[in-house]
Amino acid sequence: MTDGKVYLIGAGPGAPDLLTVRAANVLARADIVFHDALVHPDTIALAGHAECVAVGKRSGKLSTAQRFINKRLIDAAMKHDIVVRLKGGDPMLFGRAQEEIAALKAAGIPYEVVPGVTAAFSASAELGVSLTQRGVARSVTFLTPRVGVGEKANTWARAALASDTAVIYMGAGQAELIANALLAEGMGEATPVVIVENASMPQRREWAVVLRDLPRIADLGLSGPALILIGEVYVEVLQRAEEDSARMRYG
Amino acid sequence: MTDGKVYLIGAGPGAPDLLTVRAANVLARADIVFHDALVHPDTIALAGHAECVAVGKRSGKLSTAQRFINKRLIDAAMKHDIVVRLKGGDPMLFGRAQEEIAALKAAGIPYEVVPGVTAAFSASAELGVSLTQRGVARSVTFLTPRVGVGEKANTWARAALASDTAVIYMGAGQAELIANALLAEGMGEATPVVIVENASMPQRREWAVVLRDLPRIADLGLSGPALILIGEVYVEVLQRAEEDSARMRYG
Repeated sequence: MTDGKVYLIGAGPGAPDLLTVRAANVLARADIVFHDALVHPDTIALAGHAECVAVGKRSGKLSTAQRFINKRLIDAAMKHDIVVRLKGGDPMLFGRAQEEIAALKAAGIPYEVVPGVTAAFSASAELGVSLTQRGVARSVTFLTPRVGVGEKANTWARAALASDTAVIYMGAGQAELIANALLAEGMGEATPVVIVENASMPQRREWAVVLRDLPRIADLGLSGPALILIGEVYVEVLQRAEEDSARMRYG
Repeated sequence: MTDGKVYLIGAGPGAPDLLTVRAANVLARADIVFHDALVHPDTIALAGHAECVAVGKRSGKLSTAQRFINKRLIDAAMKHDIVVRLKGGDPMLFGRAQEEIAALKAAGIPYEVVPGVTAAFSASAELGVSLTQRGVARSVTFLTPRVGVGEKANTWARAALASDTAVIYMGAGQAELIANALLAEGMGEATPVVIVENASMPQRREWAVVLRDLPRIADLGLSGPALILIGEVYVEVLQRAEEDSARMRYG
């Protein structure tokens, strides 16, 4: 048994230079890196002398079971000094870090979490629209929807409504169900919604719609990770999109 | 008039190595930097050849009016190529970036936002507790309280209640009013609450209490920026604190 330590590192939203300096320094010293499928190759390349193993979960694609990832982290810490688990965004927001932390604690293996920039911050930077705004938005909720039946089915939708701004992660594949749930809970059908795919990357795309038109994003052929941003702060983005669209149609 | 550009940069939670690589690169090229009072001196020092001007707002302390900051950014962009506005955390979350962006747009000055790690991510990393957890928390709300009277007085409290986890920024000075508002809206008085001061810094401190005891943080003599984290995900932190406290009292 060695003194191996596991670093759970946030790789940021996608662009390799949106990694933190601390993360880059740990990667440079890493012996082995277990990375999500979506982490940029240039980010992984920072781990110059490490063995790199893709374990990423990607909804609908080949993935590695969480329990198996936990076991591999523990096994690696027995053999190596510096083990890195590299995750998209920030590890503590929708990163399933807790399951890995619990497994490491149970095995008595030291760990450290290195925070990262989440996709919503990158999307906001590129849109030029702040998630909170003096006099307009004092709260922002980050959530993943659980679209289903039963008493707690629309808990997530009520959280979105109670907040001034809402950002939905991992929801682009369920756009119609999301729109229906938000409308059913009383959100206005003209509420501005912005969809951002591949935030921070060259292949980034964005669309602005009103809530009742959100189901149309099913036609966009989204393939990268996408955020759904909702709230009055996006009214200008929507107006800009409508003007562009009018110009295209009427010259 | 030059081709000056203004970069609104997130300095991260405090520790200088929790800045992004992109931010460090822009700072190295900066001609002038307007920074918040709370940004770490080592972070500012990355702007090796820049003039550095503190304009930080710090509640209750000497601060520069927002309108004056806007004007200084515009004036600087007339004279310099690379102007940096360096803010704590991420610029698009409680950073008042929108007012600066609006002023720059109105003046026809190009700008770019460089995202950063927000204090809540750093606090979560250090606590080892994820903001969201499979089966426990699917939503997290970041908010600043507006404690007052009138119809919309407790909007922020309702947002906190509707979400599984809530993080209150800039609220530590109003702990009693916050606790009363959350209790009045129906949050359980035994809800776990963690207060983290100076996340990511050597002088970091943390406390865990139940909601009804939140007003006691007024006695802690908080002087640095503090977060109030609320929700069932913190139940283990609370238990740990209670065990530590029992050990101290009873040996």
